[in-house]
Amino acid sequence: MNKSPFRIAIAGLGTVGGGVVKALTARGEELSRRAGRELKLVSVSARDPRKARGYALTGWTADPLELARGEADVVVELIGGDEGIARDLVTLALKNGKHVVTANKALLARHGTELAELAESRGVTLKFEAAAAGGIPILKALREGLIAQPIEAVKGILNGTCNYILTEMESSGRSFAAVLKEAQARGYAEADPTLDVGGGDTAHKLALLSSLAFGTRPDLDSISVEGIEHITPDDIAYAREFGFRIKLLGVTRRVGEGIEQKVHPSMVRQRSPLANVDGAQNGVMVDAGAAGSFFFSGRGAGETPTASAVIADIVEAASETPSPVFGRPARSLTRLVPADAKAAVSPWYLRFEVLDVPGVLALIAGHLAEAGVSIESMIQRGRDPGEPVAIVMITHETAQANVERALKAIAASDKVRSRPCMIPMEAA
Amino acid sequence: MNKSPFRIAIAGLGTVGGGVVKALTARGEELSRRAGRELKLVSVSARDPRKARGYALTGWTADPLELARGEADVVVELIGGDEGIARDLVTLALKNGKHVVTANKALLARHGTELAELAESRGVTLKFEAAAAGGIPILKALREGLIAQPIEAVKGILNGTCNYILTEMESSGRSFAAVLKEAQARGYAEADPTLDVGGGDTAHKLALLSSLAFGTRPDLDSISVEGIEHITPDDIAYAREFGFRIKLLGVTRRVGEGIEQKVHPSMVRQRSPLANVDGAQNGVMVDAGAAGSFFFSGRGAGETPTASAVIADIVEAASETPSPVFGRPARSLTRLVPADAKAAVSPWYLRFEVLDVPGVLALIAGHLAEAGVSIESMIQRGRDPGEPVAIVMITHETAQANVERALKAIAASDKVRSRPCMIPMEAA
Repeated sequence: MNKSPFRIAIAGLGTVGGGVVKALTARGEELSRRAGRELKLVSVSARDPRKARGYALTGWTADPLELARGEADVVVELIGGDEGIARDLVTLALKNGKHVVTANKALLARHGTELAELAESRGVTLKFEAAAAGGIPILKALREGLIAQPIEAVKGILNGTCNYILTEMESSGRSFAAVLKEAQARGYAEADPTLDVGGGDTAHKLALLSSLAFGTRPDLDSISVEGIEHITPDDIAYAREFGFRIKLLGVTRRVGEGIEQKVHPSMVRQRSPLANVDGAQNGVMVDAGAAGSFFFSGRGAGETPTASAVIADIVEAASETPSPVFGRPARSLTRLVPADAKAAVSPWYLRFEVLDVPGVLALIAGHLAEAGVSIESMIQRGRDPGEPVAIVMITHETAQANVERALKAIAASDKVRSRPCMIPMEAA
Repeated sequence: MNKSPFRIAIAGLGTVGGGVVKALTARGEELSRRAGRELKLVSVSARDPRKARGYALTGWTADPLELARGEADVVVELIGGDEGIARDLVTLALKNGKHVVTANKALLARHGTELAELAESRGVTLKFEAAAAGGIPILKALREGLIAQPIEAVKGILNGTCNYILTEMESSGRSFAAVLKEAQARGYAEADPTLDVGGGDTAHKLALLSSLAFGTRPDLDSISVEGIEHITPDDIAYAREFGFRIKLLGVTRRVGEGIEQKVHPSMVRQRSPLANVDGAQNGVMVDAGAAGSFFFSGRGAGETPTASAVIADIVEAASETPSPVFGRPARSLTRLVPADAKAAVSPWYLRFEVLDVPGVLALIAGHLAEAGVSIESMIQRGRDPGEPVAIVMITHETAQANVERALKAIAASDKVRSRPCMIPMEAA
């Protein structure tokens, strides 16, 4: 190692930033050996320099932008947010010819193409392994590993909070609201959980996986997003009866000439690898066409897994020739042509809450038939006097548009209570 | 792309070599864009130039060593074998300052340290992603991804033939010999299956995973190896009754100051990811300590997955600065200190075939107690008159040495038919 030290600046010393500092301290020698040069933390930026963190602050500055102007070779951005200081910092650092490592999925999902072009024009590295699926090196696998065959689809459980909530709902039979409240109390869910449970966080990550898989510019806006707020313990119990589990999936796949991107609760077969991703874990299935399907799982968030992904990126930035940010030169990334998600065909799980009066099943069956939706199996039960009755069905393969048309007509009847629930069933 | 073309020579045009040529032809432009320079196949070596292959032979030569002397920037070695022509070719190519990509696990397991030192001294790349778990980018994950925390253990289903045979035995109830014969007829197993079913192929791959995980020199000789030849349909059925499945695992893990490496049939819990790796698939579980456990699965062999791994290596060789072959400089790899495998503690599955005479259970229980092995649960059944009776047990956690001591004493009795069967139960 006769190269000069690789100087590191870190902006943001929350959970992940702290984990990075601790790993650099505890394992600096080993990591330097891997990098082929000394890894040297030269400056950090955090709001409160007096906060007790259990480690010393090297070269503290209040202004993160200072890090982009200083001596560092790489700026590690762990502030978060798709605009404001995080965007300014990353842009300035790249402009100043510094490598950037970030865990910021929102920033990359919104401005990935522009930032990649900037990095490539300056001949520096922009890395973001920690931005999706935390400790699982899935971005690396898509960027560098599974490149010889065209990818057909990527499906992932990408949000640990949602998966924790669904797992707890299944094991305890409690409602979404009750489990969410407990998760918040235990620090597993944010005070404002919207970004997680509403599917937005999964969408950010999916936009990055899409880009790496298909060579398209990250395109957050064309992702159709549905969260898990409306999933009931009954849905989960019925799913189990049919041999399925309910997971919030981010799915991106080729459909004809376009790419379908969506985030939504899905039924997955109990024996499938995705169904067995429990608690706060993440899991990703990649359909690599002729090369077959590949599955990756592990911890997707938390201090150590996420910090580990950041560390791996720092080591690569120190040792590698900069390579295209999204695997292909940013200028060659194509505009994503969204496929018509409503045309996508799958079997569907449908649940109706109906009044127990004559003719209601005929009404439902009639509207489904009219829309061309045929029923594969059905469960009806729960006839406490005065209580609404649940009618649950699995359909044969049919387009989303057909199901929606039928459900709209059915929901208009005064015999049907609340909005019917529809969940697609994933093949794998 | 104003760099010069990256010139590729391929030695060995079997299944994998053919797949590489086809992918380079079909997707040359896309792959060149990823590599940042044109990928150009300039020469190949194969025994018979007249064989119908479905693609043209570019720059054919009969002598593979010619490739190491020619104009190529990278030599792709797909001949196989740990000595002879493959070793000579790789050595000469590295000596001549050419990058090398190989799928040769035996060569790397035996001579990895020496070849890595040679590559690093010449400033060239030596890559071997295809050497273990085919299409799954597990070597890359260990080498570049999961590096921030010390790895505690790696456990893998690394041989598709064994996993196919065990899966078929389970689903059909047929014997090892019958399923092997069918697998051979269908081309899923070699005419001489010893290297696969005896565990040797898994050991080669395990030696490479060990080195990457622990920074040790590949050490094939300290791996204890046991194959699947003695597994019976009864063992598989009993395993299922206890909630387990039988898999041939390669396991490497820290035990005290040493590293335990072994290849052996194992009981894995039905719900664990490894238990659900079916047919010819491969699966690898990495225990990354504080970062948690990570699981990877997919096709481990066959033309397209293996060729895909070779292609990914070629693209990296074309675009990257050469980096240490085993993740750390070869000179810094330490000698592996083997842990005492017999001291390793786990619960055990034991099966005895005994004569149905008074006192036989007392005899077995007595010897187990004497060796300090205590029994957690037991099944006894199958009392057709004159037939031997199977006694099957799960023990509490105990060292292998204790179980072996008890079984030796038990096997000496004339009431016990055939060699007792012992299979460790994996925690994860």
